[in-house]
Amino acid sequence: MNRKTLIEKIFERRSFLCVGLDSDMSKLPACLASDHDAMFTFNRAIIDATAPYCVAYKPNAAFYEAAGIVGESTLQRTAQYLKEYYPDHFLILDAKRGDIGNTARMYARSAFDILGCDAVTVAPYMGSDSVLPFLEHEGHFVVLLALTSNGGSADFQMSRDEKGKRLFERVIEKSREWGNADNMMYVVGATRGSLIGDVRKLVPDNFLLVPGVGAQGGSLEDVCQYGLTKDCGLLVNSTRGIIFADSSEHYAEGAAAAAHALQEQMAAQLDKLKH
Amino acid sequence: MNRKTLIEKIFERRSFLCVGLDSDMSKLPACLASDHDAMFTFNRAIIDATAPYCVAYKPNAAFYEAAGIVGESTLQRTAQYLKEYYPDHFLILDAKRGDIGNTARMYARSAFDILGCDAVTVAPYMGSDSVLPFLEHEGHFVVLLALTSNGGSADFQMSRDEKGKRLFERVIEKSREWGNADNMMYVVGATRGSLIGDVRKLVPDNFLLVPGVGAQGGSLEDVCQYGLTKDCGLLVNSTRGIIFADSSEHYAEGAAAAAHALQEQMAAQLDKLKH
Repeated sequence: MNRKTLIEKIFERRSFLCVGLDSDMSKLPACLASDHDAMFTFNRAIIDATAPYCVAYKPNAAFYEAAGIVGESTLQRTAQYLKEYYPDHFLILDAKRGDIGNTARMYARSAFDILGCDAVTVAPYMGSDSVLPFLEHEGHFVVLLALTSNGGSADFQMSRDEKGKRLFERVIEKSREWGNADNMMYVVGATRGSLIGDVRKLVPDNFLLVPGVGAQGGSLEDVCQYGLTKDCGLLVNSTRGIIFADSSEHYAEGAAAAAHALQEQMAAQLDKLKH
Repeated sequence: MNRKTLIEKIFERRSFLCVGLDSDMSKLPACLASDHDAMFTFNRAIIDATAPYCVAYKPNAAFYEAAGIVGESTLQRTAQYLKEYYPDHFLILDAKRGDIGNTARMYARSAFDILGCDAVTVAPYMGSDSVLPFLEHEGHFVVLLALTSNGGSADFQMSRDEKGKRLFERVIEKSREWGNADNMMYVVGATRGSLIGDVRKLVPDNFLLVPGVGAQGGSLEDVCQYGLTKDCGLLVNSTRGIIFADSSEHYAEGAAAAAHALQEQMAAQLDKLKH
């Protein structure tokens, strides 16, 4: 899915919600205990229930890798299910990959060719040749880590260089030499309030993928105040607040309600725009 | 395998060679074209041929992910094969993972519990809570990216902060608050000559995993001059120069010869030490 279509879907569905599919085996509802394909059953039910309220899904590779081959197969089948039944939803593999050129090429193949994702999160530490191979896949996106939502982000991302620039700002500035708004997005944590505004000044047109709303303490109003553009320009992710909203056999309805509530807040924000 | 045993194996085998198992499907010898389990056949033959000359193996996850579920299964069976038949070899998963705490915990489970690796490479960009969950696995190692061997390493790793410290130096200094020589190693590219000496000063006792000797242009003599300690303190990785040394049906013998040649150079270096 390209940028133009993503924007269309956002305004049609009145939502810029991304649902994180971190389907931790140990946190699945008890009613799935005897289901031999519990992760996939869970994902399918969550997707079916939340699809009307979101524009994107973001499975995190770690939760599937931790379940071994069965988990890897679940990730692949989840991606296939989304591509087949929900082709109008944007699919992000949250993998935070980053390796030298010939290896990055393999990760790109895995995310885009094998799993059929539209985008993959990439870590910037290794620089240009760890990112460029992903950008060779036309019509796909790199979502580059800039300022993450965790406590450890203060360790290096906020450190200033000789000219007073913070590392996350250098990452964004440098990466503008590699791609553009049609093939790059940035991860910017919602727990960082006005810092989203600092990022927005550097990349006025790129989409920002914003985790940290809800469970991690970020506010949707703050995110929109600093990050919203005339094309929306935001994908706001919620994971635990949606997929684990209800641990009973009504988990799918619980997820739908949580997603719907966020979608309504997002619709109110989009209504303020003159698109 | 703990640090003490690793050092014993290095001096017993007179080698600090790590063989990279980046078993790119498209580069396997033609004689394996009709083998339905070609990646595993290749890995097993390479391992059997090179085991006398090395102390560690390092499969890179990307090459297995790029081959889909079959690839993931091959990685798992390769790790099992190593643990069963070569328990005296150190096993590093080269995955360069890095994510928030609860997610990093999943990656640690995948590397240590599912695959049974001794160590995993981790990217530092997201800071403390992306690294600490790996260190909770006693008897295992984080191999933290410090200064990588690719061109893009200049983009951020070499940038200086307000006090003139380069980012890779800040990463190493900060990480000393998280772990020690018994559970942390560092990736330091061999293409960087004397920079290995700068790293050695910061971490006199930690093992350094050094890629870039051979195909990427680094020299073993330089690496040893700057990085060798009385306990060796080095794992020097070679990948393409060994596993793809010979593309004929004699590929395993070719790999053995290449590994043996490096081992002999390493033995000469170890002989200089008064261990």
